[in-house]
Amino acid sequence: MQGIRGLFVPGPTNVPEAVRKAMDVPMEDHRSPDVPALVLPLFQDLKKVFRTETGQVFLFPATGTGGWEASITNTLSPGDKVLAPRFGQFSVLWVDLCQRLGLDVETLDCEWGTGVPLETVAERLMADKKHEIKAILACHNETATGVTSDIGGLRKVMDQCDHPALLYVDGISSIGSLEFRMEDWGVDLAVAGSQKGFMMPAGLALIGVSQKALEASKTAQLRRCYFDFKDMIATNATGYFPYTPPMHMLHGLRASLNRIEAEGLENIWGRHRFLAEGVRRAVAAWNLTLCAKEPKWHSDTVSAIVVPEGHDARKVIARAYERYGLSLGAGLSVVAGKVFRIGHLGDLNELMLMMALGGAEMSMRDVGLPIEAGSGVAAAEEFWRASNSRSMALAAE
Amino acid sequence: MQGIRGLFVPGPTNVPEAVRKAMDVPMEDHRSPDVPALVLPLFQDLKKVFRTETGQVFLFPATGTGGWEASITNTLSPGDKVLAPRFGQFSVLWVDLCQRLGLDVETLDCEWGTGVPLETVAERLMADKKHEIKAILACHNETATGVTSDIGGLRKVMDQCDHPALLYVDGISSIGSLEFRMEDWGVDLAVAGSQKGFMMPAGLALIGVSQKALEASKTAQLRRCYFDFKDMIATNATGYFPYTPPMHMLHGLRASLNRIEAEGLENIWGRHRFLAEGVRRAVAAWNLTLCAKEPKWHSDTVSAIVVPEGHDARKVIARAYERYGLSLGAGLSVVAGKVFRIGHLGDLNELMLMMALGGAEMSMRDVGLPIEAGSGVAAAEEFWRASNSRSMALAAE
Amino acid sequence: MQGIRGLFVPGPTNVPEAVRKAMDVPMEDHRSPDVPALVLPLFQDLKKVFRTETGQVFLFPATGTGGWEASITNTLSPGDKVLAPRFGQFSVLWVDLCQRLGLDVETLDCEWGTGVPLETVAERLMADKKHEIKAILACHNETATGVTSDIGGLRKVMDQCDHPALLYVDGISSIGSLEFRMEDWGVDLAVAGSQKGFMMPAGLALIGVSQKALEASKTAQLRRCYFDFKDMIATNATGYFPYTPPMHMLHGLRASLNRIEAEGLENIWGRHRFLAEGVRRAVAAWNLTLCAKEPKWHSDTVSAIVVPEGHDARKVIARAYERYGLSLGAGLSVVAGKVFRIGHLGDLNELMLMMALGGAEMSMRDVGLPIEAGSGVAAAEEFWRASNSRSMALAAE
Amino acid sequence: MQGIRGLFVPGPTNVPEAVRKAMDVPMEDHRSPDVPALVLPLFQDLKKVFRTETGQVFLFPATGTGGWEASITNTLSPGDKVLAPRFGQFSVLWVDLCQRLGLDVETLDCEWGTGVPLETVAERLMADKKHEIKAILACHNETATGVTSDIGGLRKVMDQCDHPALLYVDGISSIGSLEFRMEDWGVDLAVAGSQKGFMMPAGLALIGVSQKALEASKTAQLRRCYFDFKDMIATNATGYFPYTPPMHMLHGLRASLNRIEAEGLENIWGRHRFLAEGVRRAVAAWNLTLCAKEPKWHSDTVSAIVVPEGHDARKVIARAYERYGLSLGAGLSVVAGKVFRIGHLGDLNELMLMMALGGAEMSMRDVGLPIEAGSGVAAAEEFWRASNSRSMALAAE
Repeated sequence: MQGIRGLFVPGPTNVPEAVRKAMDVPMEDHRSPDVPALVLPLFQDLKKVFRTETGQVFLFPATGTGGWEASITNTLSPGDKVLAPRFGQFSVLWVDLCQRLGLDVETLDCEWGTGVPLETVAERLMADKKHEIKAILACHNETATGVTSDIGGLRKVMDQCDHPALLYVDGISSIGSLEFRMEDWGVDLAVAGSQKGFMMPAGLALIGVSQKALEASKTAQLRRCYFDFKDMIATNATGYFPYTPPMHMLHGLRASLNRIEAEGLENIWGRHRFLAEGVRRAVAAWNLTLCAKEPKWHSDTVSAIVVPEGHDARKVIARAYERYGLSLGAGLSVVAGKVFRIGHLGDLNELMLMMALGGAEMSMRDVGLPIEAGSGVAAAEEFWRASNSRSMALAAE
Repeated sequence: MQGIRGLFVPGPTNVPEAVRKAMDVPMEDHRSPDVPALVLPLFQDLKKVFRTETGQVFLFPATGTGGWEASITNTLSPGDKVLAPRFGQFSVLWVDLCQRLGLDVETLDCEWGTGVPLETVAERLMADKKHEIKAILACHNETATGVTSDIGGLRKVMDQCDHPALLYVDGISSIGSLEFRMEDWGVDLAVAGSQKGFMMPAGLALIGVSQKALEASKTAQLRRCYFDFKDMIATNATGYFPYTPPMHMLHGLRASLNRIEAEGLENIWGRHRFLAEGVRRAVAAWNLTLCAKEPKWHSDTVSAIVVPEGHDARKVIARAYERYGLSLGAGLSVVAGKVFRIGHLGDLNELMLMMALGGAEMSMRDVGLPIEAGSGVAAAEEFWRASNSRSMALAAE
Repeated sequence: MQGIRGLFVPGPTNVPEAVRKAMDVPMEDHRSPDVPALVLPLFQDLKKVFRTETGQVFLFPATGTGGWEASITNTLSPGDKVLAPRFGQFSVLWVDLCQRLGLDVETLDCEWGTGVPLETVAERLMADKKHEIKAILACHNETATGVTSDIGGLRKVMDQCDHPALLYVDGISSIGSLEFRMEDWGVDLAVAGSQKGFMMPAGLALIGVSQKALEASKTAQLRRCYFDFKDMIATNATGYFPYTPPMHMLHGLRASLNRIEAEGLENIWGRHRFLAEGVRRAVAAWNLTLCAKEPKWHSDTVSAIVVPEGHDARKVIARAYERYGLSLGAGLSVVAGKVFRIGHLGDLNELMLMMALGGAEMSMRDVGLPIEAGSGVAAAEEFWRASNSRSMALAAE
Repeated sequence: MQGIRGLFVPGPTNVPEAVRKAMDVPMEDHRSPDVPALVLPLFQDLKKVFRTETGQVFLFPATGTGGWEASITNTLSPGDKVLAPRFGQFSVLWVDLCQRLGLDVETLDCEWGTGVPLETVAERLMADKKHEIKAILACHNETATGVTSDIGGLRKVMDQCDHPALLYVDGISSIGSLEFRMEDWGVDLAVAGSQKGFMMPAGLALIGVSQKALEASKTAQLRRCYFDFKDMIATNATGYFPYTPPMHMLHGLRASLNRIEAEGLENIWGRHRFLAEGVRRAVAAWNLTLCAKEPKWHSDTVSAIVVPEGHDARKVIARAYERYGLSLGAGLSVVAGKVFRIGHLGDLNELMLMMALGGAEMSMRDVGLPIEAGSGVAAAEEFWRASNSRSMALAAE
């Protein structure tokens, strides 16, 4: 293919030059005296991204799924009851994982396009007088439907119910992109992955763990070894790992954290909101709707766009990829064929989104969707122009 | 800055990943036995790109200006008369170079926005009964104004006049992008640069030289050493250079030539025409005009767009760069402030041009140009969509 | 530091340029239609490296420890008895993992410096009339002591005893470097890691699984999800993964497998033997001994060198690293301070080993070891020179 | 080939990772407002490396030969007399260049293996009462023979003779590696190349020019355009170039200058002396001699080693390259076959030189030279060990 492709799936995201270069290193001895000077600050800086002061962050050579597994196996015991709202492909998979690991999962099934149902959760917690529920699983940003849930609100509900369950949050497509406050929101286990807001390839699971969860890990009975916090705690303290870490990923993470710090978390959150709103203006100009049912669910990292009745979103995606070199996200499971997704997270700016919007317009028209050429682009342009303060200029290179 | 920048100056152009990687090599002995296996095929394949079978191509570690100097100093003598149409910044500079090197330059000054005036040249050649004119200098693609001249037509004029002058062509922003036929058009000296159609950084001047010009070099009296064809002829024959070549550039050129061969020269010319036409449709939809006075002058590698009276193109360019991370080309010399340029050459596709068009629309509106949001993008989209045969899919990766 | 460092730990190993470049890619959609063309051949080619025709190879985003866990949890059930010879740090850790996952491990403790004790295993299997032993764990190459065990011999013992236990082999520091024949040797689960013979960073666990083991996985009761073969089997069949794979590692693996195929497995085994023997000649010339007790245990991927009584190997290692930029492997656990290790596996040649030998000589003399300057280098030189057939020239670039 | 090659020609030298990465950049607009922030500090920092405060440094996209031509054509006029000691291939070529450019060159031919003959020069200058000699050309480090001349001494001679000639110094293989003091030594034109002490690929000629030489350039009559100081002076002042510069080389130069500054010029000079002395000890232990006739001529960047009568140095070089992947420098012109060269300049340390010495030992023995295995390595080891202060540790990464 001539020229670059446009990557607008909601992860893996575009890897900045600086991160790519940082990852492209000669190998080195992972037990050398120089390693702690790299590793120890990573843990410190990750705490800032997770927004936790009292918690600890772990790094596992694994994907987000591995992060889910680590968070569960280290803190729960066979047969433990967990409460899990379910409203998209990733909350579905998380529940499946818990079941296969031997937990007693009670799901709260909600319409896809909605998020964590705070009132229902409140009712259920209130009813759980014996505190049989050991854990609540909340998908902060359901990547399949483009829905962001209110984790701070969930914490309030838990507090109001005075319920001692641990709060597990899947922040894979939110942490580093959307507002996330582990400490303030009382999150006990927060799972992130390297290939989203951290702007790296997949391969690192990052897990923020509260003191309460660390305490729980001392008695949790689920079997584990690779993902055991204990070995990490022992070796991380001196700047090492219990097994050979992917050194290139650690160097990449260093560069990623440098960029995050340079831009500033609040600025990053703001940039994602600003860019996402432009995309939403385009969707409205196309007379299309989002999978997310209400504005309060709107995700700033991914928009799942519903194609009109009688059209197949898969055709849009295939056309975009084959004719224009544009990668859009597919609809998963029950929304397959009904939505296509534009990921707008990570290392991104207005100009890049022109590729997504222009390419989507051409592709939709090519396969017969009743979209006006240029309409979405125009709407996004006008929104982005309105802000004179250049979002992307907020941070120095 | 977050995300990538958009590079749409008419050179340097975007360097493909494969070329970047090919250039990023450990150094090696430039006199090793392995070097000829790299170097000799470069010369063979360059001849295909220049479309010459009987000529020879030289590679100098220099820029296009160095290519001009090499072509002149190797083939002319002090005081030689050369005829040079002049209609843009680069034809101006080439004339200046000739004068400083001691030639007697007769210029044919034309309006900027036009190209080589075939009839005027014909008249002048006809009048030159004594064949005092030793050389004709023609800028194939005047990058400053986005004007492509008719070199094949110029050759016909020379033939009709039966004039023996050498034909020098500045193909810096055309060779490898626009139709160019050195052999068929009887070009004697064709100068290209690595940073345009060859999709590399600046640093290599590539010069196609006809047998007639090589013959002329044996008696040419202008002083030269670094740029002497003679040393190149002697060492290139065995796959080496008279001095240490930039090995990384040679490896990059190998990757560049591989891409060119994979796509096919005719396909490359077609892709440039196709992408350029989309840009011109956008310009028309904006109700703006090109600097090129007539369609026959339209360049497929760069469009110089005239801003309306009372507006300053420099503001558009500054806004695009500072607010949106978009590099547009400036108006040079007498058209400074009057035009901005969109380079559309090299490793490019429709999706990437969305960045240029969308970014230009936002920038123009930001500084007050009476442009309708989305109009240019829509026009380009509709043009590009009309072709179902994906231009960018013509060549395998 | 000026210049390059010398990396001679037994993993991570030196990553060749071609593999580094292959890993340094823009991200892409892991669900795109182009992914299977990358992924499916990886599995085919990995089977060649594992030397299995009937088995299946799995790729997990994890380290070798994760590979151990995957092999165990997919094929065994809580309380299953496994027989595990133990004679070095890595066999110790593997046993620990099994115990933590809930198995009943019976260890055969042997002197460090020896390997799998075939006769003892035979006796034990003979005694196991009820076939209570479900698995035998064998460390093919014990990286801590530089000992290679006879896996083919172990299979013969198992066959002679007509014992149905599954044979698990830790081939992390052997597969891709030492002779390994999964099919011929009847290995049921063979674990490799990307950072050794595959010449990549850590981050991929590669597991060869026999049909017998796949059958066992259908009823195995240990809990698993991330490492579940089942999800891999379902998605790998079409060229995908159950979760986001580290695409850059897959591209790196492609380049690694290309190199392996270009050199040829037998040539790779031969090269490792040839280079290792040079190192052993150097050790002999230094009047030092190897940790491996007998020549039959000599590892061709790592030599653990015993320092004389009264000296501390840690000082040699520290001096080498700090003064000369040379990374040597440390003695682990009970041999800490007693040995230092030279890793000689992966992308290596005689010239590179000059760094290891010369650097080791200087470092040993610096800290007072009674070594003659140049003696080891001379011995290695003379051995390597004796072979006129250049080991490193066996494969094309 | 497996593993890395050893590059020990006296240029191109090994490019450090940091420089390679800095050069591997996306292209950018060379006229963008961000360019001066890159370019202006380059000129400032280059002055520090040339050790000039009142002079100006120019950067041309060219090789060292282009640097020679630029220095000559900008400051001399046709027929000017220049005095040029000649004692090696590069001083020979420089004289040739001057002659082809139209100068009247008076050579002082000296035995190869010696350098600038101060007394002879003094005599000649004394005799030049009319000051007909306009320029003295001195090769600071004759790369072909490994001879360093005394430029400070030459200046003293010129001063003692009160001679106004301009002093031209070829510092291509010395500047950035050997002690060089443009200001103190009154050098008027100092030529360097990117591929030696600057640790980059070839492609940049760097020229230090004194105020006296800049003054001379105003009236010098040799023809020039590409290499004209005037255009550079005009555009460099604001941080730009008169034509498209190789942006990647400018970024590489930035990284190179960062490394030079981090290590410190005096430390760099010291490291080169230290490493070179180890090589010389090895040569002595081999019972071989250097081409340089006396210790005062010994170059710290390259050693030209004479093979014994009856042997052919070309065989050593061929064997080293083909069997061991080691690039040694060839003997040029009259010393072809008589010497092989070990370049020891740039980004280098003791460990890397083990490759050169060990590989040279094997190769020499392979082709029958009466060298004792390990003898040179041992001698170098003992010399380098003697210094406890780690040369390569002097500068932070």
